[in-house]
Amino acid sequence: MKEAHFESVKTEGTSLPERTAEQISRLIVEQHLTSEDKLPSEFELAEQLHVGRGTVREGVKLLVARNVLEIRRGKGTYIARNPGEVPDPLGFAYYPDQVQLAMDLVEIRGQMEPWVARMAAERAAPEDLTELRETCLVVEQDILAERDHSKNDVLFHVAIAKCTHNLVVPKLIPIITYAITLFVALTKSRLRMETLVDHREIMEAICNRNPERAEEMMARHIAHNRAVLEEIVAGLKEQEGTPSD
Amino acid sequence: MKEAHFESVKTEGTSLPERTAEQISRLIVEQHLTSEDKLPSEFELAEQLHVGRGTVREGVKLLVARNVLEIRRGKGTYIARNPGEVPDPLGFAYYPDQVQLAMDLVEIRGQMEPWVARMAAERAAPEDLTELRETCLVVEQDILAERDHSKNDVLFHVAIAKCTHNLVVPKLIPIITYAITLFVALTKSRLRMETLVDHREIMEAICNRNPERAEEMMARHIAHNRAVLEEIVAGLKEQEGTPSD
Repeated sequence: MKEAHFESVKTEGTSLPERTAEQISRLIVEQHLTSEDKLPSEFELAEQLHVGRGTVREGVKLLVARNVLEIRRGKGTYIARNPGEVPDPLGFAYYPDQVQLAMDLVEIRGQMEPWVARMAAERAAPEDLTELRETCLVVEQDILAERDHSKNDVLFHVAIAKCTHNLVVPKLIPIITYAITLFVALTKSRLRMETLVDHREIMEAICNRNPERAEEMMARHIAHNRAVLEEIVAGLKEQEGTPSD
Repeated sequence: MKEAHFESVKTEGTSLPERTAEQISRLIVEQHLTSEDKLPSEFELAEQLHVGRGTVREGVKLLVARNVLEIRRGKGTYIARNPGEVPDPLGFAYYPDQVQLAMDLVEIRGQMEPWVARMAAERAAPEDLTELRETCLVVEQDILAERDHSKNDVLFHVAIAKCTHNLVVPKLIPIITYAITLFVALTKSRLRMETLVDHREIMEAICNRNPERAEEMMARHIAHNRAVLEEIVAGLKEQEGTPSD
């Protein structure tokens, strides 16, 4: 069953290095190579794929750029730890209207994350709860020390997602919480104490295996964020002199 | 307000071409360059960023590999149409257990897509509905002609997502429907007629602006998919001789 896999989704490229990159990535999938595995040498790959070593080199560069392969200094080229996963996979950094993006993301969070918190309370293993408690504490320390807590805030939401034991949910959280950095910057310190209290309530509900309360507390947390974001957007619109209809 | 943007999320790279790629991508964001815009010449970039032209060339290659830039034959290097968006952004192709992945994705779809269908019925503009009807028809034609309908099936779900006018929802659908190809392959023709009927009911509920029914029909559609997928997984486990507990 584990042998089943998809046809390669990367069919857009037609240059020779692009096709070579695709062949190498198929080889990684078919031979079940993992981050423990070193990529075969340029020479071997060139022989096997019937292309020149220069083409192999270009293909490898493409896969390094896409985080399928990684170069470990002094050791050679290996399969990446999370092959194919890239930071900002939907290109949010290039969206012209970042505030609209933040609003649309908080809408999705309001739908998904209470459900994630519920599943977390239902399914978490003891070691998941240990990680969750630790991550909650790290955010609290950031907040109390008035440091930027946005990175650890994302990790707290990822720790909840890991409790679900769904393979994909923890990968979606960094996407939909992309706006946290902007949000923390925009709201300045206004939500810091509210965040601390909300996080603690969510964490405790999950640790007490209370799915209803976990869901409710997460819904409240996102609603707090959304309300403050809407206030800020209204303020920005007023400053710009455009009607906030 | 539109000027606000995030700090760059790509901070992991430290090689010179990597840093150059980051500087170029910051320049794209700050100068609001779009797919209409040609990238400044290698010479100009080298001057501006105080690096050699070879380094600029390597940096540009990295951004092409990540679909931030694209080379248009005979025209030069332009900003990509959806900069930073890559196929398979979470690296699903490299997951060792594709069937577990399909199960976990259908769980997420069961949570998200009924909500998306509801919002679609509430918010769709007339032109969204035209696209939705057309896409529904294309899938029907595939099914009736016994062609592989998986690509157009994804487009149908994306067309529903576009009706929500949330910027991010249409980008998440191709991720969570990644398993459709595998699913269509595994279920063979078993679900073809059910899919045709389900899709039509969802489409009509959205066009009739009936959010409750749109939500309900989408939930039924995903539940159908999930039930068949579970049957298949049980069958595969039996074949393997492992208990299906």
